[in-house]
Amino acid sequence: MCGIMGIYNNTEASTLAYMGLYAQQHRGQEGAGIVSANEGKLFRHMGQGLVSDVFSEPSVFDELQGNSAIGHVRYSTTGESDRKNVGPLMFNVDDIPISIAHNGNLVNAADVRRRLQQEGAIFQTSTDTEIIIHLLAREQGKTIADRLERALQKVAGAYSLLIITPDELIAARDPHGIRPFCLGRLKDAYLLASETCAFDLLGADYLRDIKPGEMLVIDPDGLHTKQIFPETQPRHCIFEHIYFSRPDSRIFDENVDKIRRKFSKILADEQPAPGADIVISVPDSSNTNALGYARRANLKYEIGLIRNHYVGRTFIFPSQRLRDLSVKLKFNTVRGVLKDREVVVVDDSIVRGTTLKKLTRLLKASGVKKVHVRIGSPPVRHPCFYGMDFPTETELLAADHSEAEMQAIIAVDSLGYLSIDGMLNATGADKEHFCTACFSGNYPVIPKGDHD
Amino acid sequence: MCGIMGIYNNTEASTLAYMGLYAQQHRGQEGAGIVSANEGKLFRHMGQGLVSDVFSEPSVFDELQGNSAIGHVRYSTTGESDRKNVGPLMFNVDDIPISIAHNGNLVNAADVRRRLQQEGAIFQTSTDTEIIIHLLAREQGKTIADRLERALQKVAGAYSLLIITPDELIAARDPHGIRPFCLGRLKDAYLLASETCAFDLLGADYLRDIKPGEMLVIDPDGLHTKQIFPETQPRHCIFEHIYFSRPDSRIFDENVDKIRRKFSKILADEQPAPGADIVISVPDSSNTNALGYARRANLKYEIGLIRNHYVGRTFIFPSQRLRDLSVKLKFNTVRGVLKDREVVVVDDSIVRGTTLKKLTRLLKASGVKKVHVRIGSPPVRHPCFYGMDFPTETELLAADHSEAEMQAIIAVDSLGYLSIDGMLNATGADKEHFCTACFSGNYPVIPKGDHD
Amino acid sequence: MCGIMGIYNNTEASTLAYMGLYAQQHRGQEGAGIVSANEGKLFRHMGQGLVSDVFSEPSVFDELQGNSAIGHVRYSTTGESDRKNVGPLMFNVDDIPISIAHNGNLVNAADVRRRLQQEGAIFQTSTDTEIIIHLLAREQGKTIADRLERALQKVAGAYSLLIITPDELIAARDPHGIRPFCLGRLKDAYLLASETCAFDLLGADYLRDIKPGEMLVIDPDGLHTKQIFPETQPRHCIFEHIYFSRPDSRIFDENVDKIRRKFSKILADEQPAPGADIVISVPDSSNTNALGYARRANLKYEIGLIRNHYVGRTFIFPSQRLRDLSVKLKFNTVRGVLKDREVVVVDDSIVRGTTLKKLTRLLKASGVKKVHVRIGSPPVRHPCFYGMDFPTETELLAADHSEAEMQAIIAVDSLGYLSIDGMLNATGADKEHFCTACFSGNYPVIPKGDHD
Amino acid sequence: MCGIMGIYNNTEASTLAYMGLYAQQHRGQEGAGIVSANEGKLFRHMGQGLVSDVFSEPSVFDELQGNSAIGHVRYSTTGESDRKNVGPLMFNVDDIPISIAHNGNLVNAADVRRRLQQEGAIFQTSTDTEIIIHLLAREQGKTIADRLERALQKVAGAYSLLIITPDELIAARDPHGIRPFCLGRLKDAYLLASETCAFDLLGADYLRDIKPGEMLVIDPDGLHTKQIFPETQPRHCIFEHIYFSRPDSRIFDENVDKIRRKFSKILADEQPAPGADIVISVPDSSNTNALGYARRANLKYEIGLIRNHYVGRTFIFPSQRLRDLSVKLKFNTVRGVLKDREVVVVDDSIVRGTTLKKLTRLLKASGVKKVHVRIGSPPVRHPCFYGMDFPTETELLAADHSEAEMQAIIAVDSLGYLSIDGMLNATGADKEHFCTACFSGNYPVIPKGDHD
Repeated sequence: MCGIMGIYNNTEASTLAYMGLYAQQHRGQEGAGIVSANEGKLFRHMGQGLVSDVFSEPSVFDELQGNSAIGHVRYSTTGESDRKNVGPLMFNVDDIPISIAHNGNLVNAADVRRRLQQEGAIFQTSTDTEIIIHLLAREQGKTIADRLERALQKVAGAYSLLIITPDELIAARDPHGIRPFCLGRLKDAYLLASETCAFDLLGADYLRDIKPGEMLVIDPDGLHTKQIFPETQPRHCIFEHIYFSRPDSRIFDENVDKIRRKFSKILADEQPAPGADIVISVPDSSNTNALGYARRANLKYEIGLIRNHYVGRTFIFPSQRLRDLSVKLKFNTVRGVLKDREVVVVDDSIVRGTTLKKLTRLLKASGVKKVHVRIGSPPVRHPCFYGMDFPTETELLAADHSEAEMQAIIAVDSLGYLSIDGMLNATGADKEHFCTACFSGNYPVIPKGDHD
Repeated sequence: MCGIMGIYNNTEASTLAYMGLYAQQHRGQEGAGIVSANEGKLFRHMGQGLVSDVFSEPSVFDELQGNSAIGHVRYSTTGESDRKNVGPLMFNVDDIPISIAHNGNLVNAADVRRRLQQEGAIFQTSTDTEIIIHLLAREQGKTIADRLERALQKVAGAYSLLIITPDELIAARDPHGIRPFCLGRLKDAYLLASETCAFDLLGADYLRDIKPGEMLVIDPDGLHTKQIFPETQPRHCIFEHIYFSRPDSRIFDENVDKIRRKFSKILADEQPAPGADIVISVPDSSNTNALGYARRANLKYEIGLIRNHYVGRTFIFPSQRLRDLSVKLKFNTVRGVLKDREVVVVDDSIVRGTTLKKLTRLLKASGVKKVHVRIGSPPVRHPCFYGMDFPTETELLAADHSEAEMQAIIAVDSLGYLSIDGMLNATGADKEHFCTACFSGNYPVIPKGDHD
Repeated sequence: MCGIMGIYNNTEASTLAYMGLYAQQHRGQEGAGIVSANEGKLFRHMGQGLVSDVFSEPSVFDELQGNSAIGHVRYSTTGESDRKNVGPLMFNVDDIPISIAHNGNLVNAADVRRRLQQEGAIFQTSTDTEIIIHLLAREQGKTIADRLERALQKVAGAYSLLIITPDELIAARDPHGIRPFCLGRLKDAYLLASETCAFDLLGADYLRDIKPGEMLVIDPDGLHTKQIFPETQPRHCIFEHIYFSRPDSRIFDENVDKIRRKFSKILADEQPAPGADIVISVPDSSNTNALGYARRANLKYEIGLIRNHYVGRTFIFPSQRLRDLSVKLKFNTVRGVLKDREVVVVDDSIVRGTTLKKLTRLLKASGVKKVHVRIGSPPVRHPCFYGMDFPTETELLAADHSEAEMQAIIAVDSLGYLSIDGMLNATGADKEHFCTACFSGNYPVIPKGDHD
Repeated sequence: MCGIMGIYNNTEASTLAYMGLYAQQHRGQEGAGIVSANEGKLFRHMGQGLVSDVFSEPSVFDELQGNSAIGHVRYSTTGESDRKNVGPLMFNVDDIPISIAHNGNLVNAADVRRRLQQEGAIFQTSTDTEIIIHLLAREQGKTIADRLERALQKVAGAYSLLIITPDELIAARDPHGIRPFCLGRLKDAYLLASETCAFDLLGADYLRDIKPGEMLVIDPDGLHTKQIFPETQPRHCIFEHIYFSRPDSRIFDENVDKIRRKFSKILADEQPAPGADIVISVPDSSNTNALGYARRANLKYEIGLIRNHYVGRTFIFPSQRLRDLSVKLKFNTVRGVLKDREVVVVDDSIVRGTTLKKLTRLLKASGVKKVHVRIGSPPVRHPCFYGMDFPTETELLAADHSEAEMQAIIAVDSLGYLSIDGMLNATGADKEHFCTACFSGNYPVIPKGDHD
């Protein structure tokens, strides 16, 4: 998964991009980069790691002059965590520098890439993003925007993308609007971001979402919009509401926090936990879920697990005994709260289930009498081809197991999921308004070719 | 402030030290180091930054062989954040390598240092810890322990300290036991740590606290104890319970979480907030406080502020406008929770008040109607000479201001502190059992000489 | 200028490449790199600086496994000393990894690049070398070698080039054989190098030169040769004999040292220095020249200048006074040898003349009575389009100045150059056998398009 | 061995120190450092490696402000090539910063160190230099100079040393003047250096040598001299003339180049090589020797070996075969010069003989008929306790072998050394004027205690 940020017409463009990426750090922690445009050239600084690591020296902004910039935080969705795949990617098309930042995944990447290579194209990265640039380079057209429009007709899948050239900033979103993409304004500047939390941090105003199938070109003459795909049914990613987006963001025209609270209430109704003494969350992502559940179920909310926020990348410990301790590095249990209690643990979702399994073992070791797990979303049974970094189907806990089996695997006293209908009711939207493929297997865009 | 960790008689001593430091990372984020003893030599790895940064390469443990080790996490208490001050410090005394890790502050450091220099001593660091080694080097005695005992008679203040030599591990604690210091056991190994959370992480058993005025020597013959100062009234630092120690630790013979919950309940009784709609915390340190307050006051606990845990060291932004945004990098407000509400914000303590001031401004900007601040400890009016990294007196918000003035400065609708009596009642202990100097000005050990 | 090295069929291929580059370090000090082929993949290590700097950690060879390898030392000929231009360059052609190392310069690079871009090619570097790969990617053909043959029909200029794929090693040389290129053998391995000194270092046998217009393919079936251009008049770069190649190398079928000695003897005949007391060299490149001149002229050879070999890259000094000292960092004068003497200074060539000017001033300051400069080659009046890193024409001292003017500019008492005829006579070869364009303006291959 | 440099009263003091160290780089390549004094403080930059590596960033000079500075280049004489031993060393004596740079070795270091430790001194390095500071710190006295004078009465051995404090620059030399030490002047500034070549580079005037047993104090009132030891017989290190000092320096009141030429002439007389065709040198240190020998012996001087100046630190090669090639990395043979010739190889000295042995094997492999080695100094039979980095006695080739044995070991056709008398005659000085201990075993100052 990734987060993107664009600024046009502000003398501090790259610093604003930096802060916008900071606000969206949760969308990708593997790498970060910013490209700015100044005097006919593009300048890039990027690296692996968090935004604060990659941009730890203020001097890097000396090289990132100019009034427009784009930024990218990346979490690899394909396993190739190579430095050269960190965005924004930079290319020379006819010796014009061009840079691209992309959130989402193309579903016909392998096919198109193969065809382009047969025609002599030489790829620099293993990203699907690069395909768009090769297509663009081969199209005729008066402007980069014209060429981009034609190129996008040849790809399918999910994309919210930003392109910067020395003169302009271009934004485009796939016909189904699978990933979020917002337009904002700060005085004379236009801003683009995956989530509105970036605008809030900067004190900027949210104007509207980029429409599915829309292309925006921002240049010295202002903002130009064009619907490059006919309007169709949006299929927004419901998982953005469940887990991925920040609770204080507004995406797909709704507040994330509000939707998430509704999930927790319906969950409490659908999956009560009679006999439980307290409700705890798996901090921090499910705090709101747990609090909502507790209130609706009229149970006490307690802080029974504390997350250790100093945990960085730890290396693989030399002995099994030490490796087993790793979950304790991340979470501390508060024994006084837990001992001899029957506890509801609320989490937002289960993907592999590995951490939850370790966590419930830890809770039991702290004296919990019974553990009831309640999940604020349906079972994740199918892979995502649109950019959510789920593992392959075989690693998804729910893919091959019934709820009873899962309860046995994670060794808890009860396990309850939110239903698909309950989830969709919480949104208040039409059932087709969201992509629920990871839960339902109902894919709005069919992947072609070998997807890697 | 600092955290220390010692291990004797385990083949993975330095890895255990690493994990023990990890668990105690909250006690010092400025630097970390480990010294191990192997085949007559000491080996050190240390650096500035977090434990996970300093020990990011597993290969560093190749140099840290041996069955005993000590570790140190440091937060400078004097402003000299020089790399050479990061512990454990290493010296050669008569060409015997010796290393020391120290939590606490000496109060006669300047005097003793000056006298030692007049006698020709050459100091390598600006720490007070080094004084102990110079004193030791000048004392006669059959063993390092004998010499240390004599050396400690010449210093005053707070110290929990660990010394490692190629053959032994020595622990000593000041006569008043100002800082916490615990002894544990993991199979055949003895462990020493500032807080028991380090033992919990390692699956080790907590045996007992090191006694005030006690010296422990652990060598191949086992554990030897000696009371090197006569028993006297302990004066444990109450601020460890208020803020500094981890809630899941047991220090000074009491669970931190339990004491902290009592603080919050007495606070609710002493400082109600009639008219308030909800209670929120300043995450993460005051979550428990806020939850306890809400429950006692019969108010709704909500998550109105979310801490951004990706915030690393940010550099100083180039413009004032951007600098003003910095509090927003750390905290996100959940507008749906806050808008048009009258809110109680619970925090554990106020030192300078700078962050709280920015935070309440942020809350108001998010639509909060009224802000009531409630603090789970009394006003901090006096400096700490025993190792808590408070600023100088002039920077303490409460030093020169009445509560009314403070309420005006941080611009809130009401402000209420826990009373000293309320705080002490919560502990259930004798009033003299704790050092409350930062609140009361009543110092158990008087600083001498210029304190730097 | 550059140096290249290739090895096929030796288990220590990358280490041999390293040593072969070491021997050819004089051909390029700006960057170095090695690519090895192992199990269907290519592995690269490269960087800016000397071979010993780039390969300072033995661990880099752990990543460079495999039985074949190519290497490259680079001195940028176009001013873009960008890290990404350091060779060997790596590409993916149809997802087959391919790497190329190139010595020489193409003369139609700008034209071909522009045309390729119009067809959608996206360039990764600003090198002319990359053009060859794009051409190859667009050609049809059963093998990489077939496609390379077709691609090379579309470029003109100087090239000795090596291409490595997971299975084979390909060598090709331009139709005029402008740059040197040698084939050697070490037991079962084939070796390719710019100069034979690389073979001598490795204890390998020199087999023969790659022929002008020849392509060699070495694969598991052995060595295959093909004349991909009709045989024509070779035009070897005479400047390789004058200055560039190492004196102990054999290039263009002749020993460099032997030719260089002949230059010095003919120089002594053509440009005597009556009245001179001693002959000194500008160490180290003209030592042989100076010794040969002295012997032929029956004058004493002395060591009057000592080169300081510790001089690394010095930064620009803050004051003019210090900048003026810079030549003294490089050369020490031996006053006892020089004082009150009339001195012949022999150098191999003059390009800009900057150092020589500073040097003669230094000699005068050391008490030399008269300075006679004798140059072992004709005046350099024209740019080189084939890879020699001469400056632009306006910076060449001899481009716009008569010998009398040059004598005045470098402020010496006499100045004498070797004649073009004298130079060619020394080689014993046919006049057309060598490219003398930098002296004569007679270019064997005409540059097309904007040369950058 | 080491080189030192001091400047007092120049606004570019640290830059001058840098250049002075550059000129003296041959005296130590293991580490370099500069300390400057500014506004009551000392500032240091140092590191391992060459001057150009350690001072590769001009920004380091921003921290080295001030009008006085000292510098140090180091070659460890004791095997501890630890970073913390790189000079100038810095200490705080009574919280006054003080820094010291030292060329030479103390002979009673172990004894004094042990005594100081018994008194409680804590050593930071394993250098003998640190002893001087501890002694100084324990002495009473009105000034640092007074205390230094008293401290130096307690040490014995060789020292040319520089001490800088915020206010003054102090120079002192041992009673025998074993190592060189020169005073110079550049406008209003005083300069001190091991060798005059540093003054020549800076365009400064050489004033005189520091006298054996003299202490100089330079402060705002000017230069003050004091003879702190009674005048006695100087015992200058003859090896400085033979090999160590730069040929263009003037040390011990004589030009190095001039003395070295005399050595070569007497060598030619004492050790002719009848039947030889040519004379070659082992470049670069013995070029002058070889040329002088050739001229006196009426033989042709030729360049048969070329030193590869790009050779940096190479790592240990993985296979023996590659390790055997290492001498070829350093030296290229010019086969055309050597083949079928009977060759005199002149070198300045033999210590271990390892390189010479490899070199003669290389010459034979290049077709030399006979190799006659002639050495411009007597056999090195005894260790040096005064700072020359000879190996232990057992590693000295001449310690246990007759000349016939040595000839067999290095496998040459003849071997001839300069005699001790011949060497001393060349200097024209009294026999007792020089220390010849490494040749004669006649030590002017007897080492005490365990020398490490």
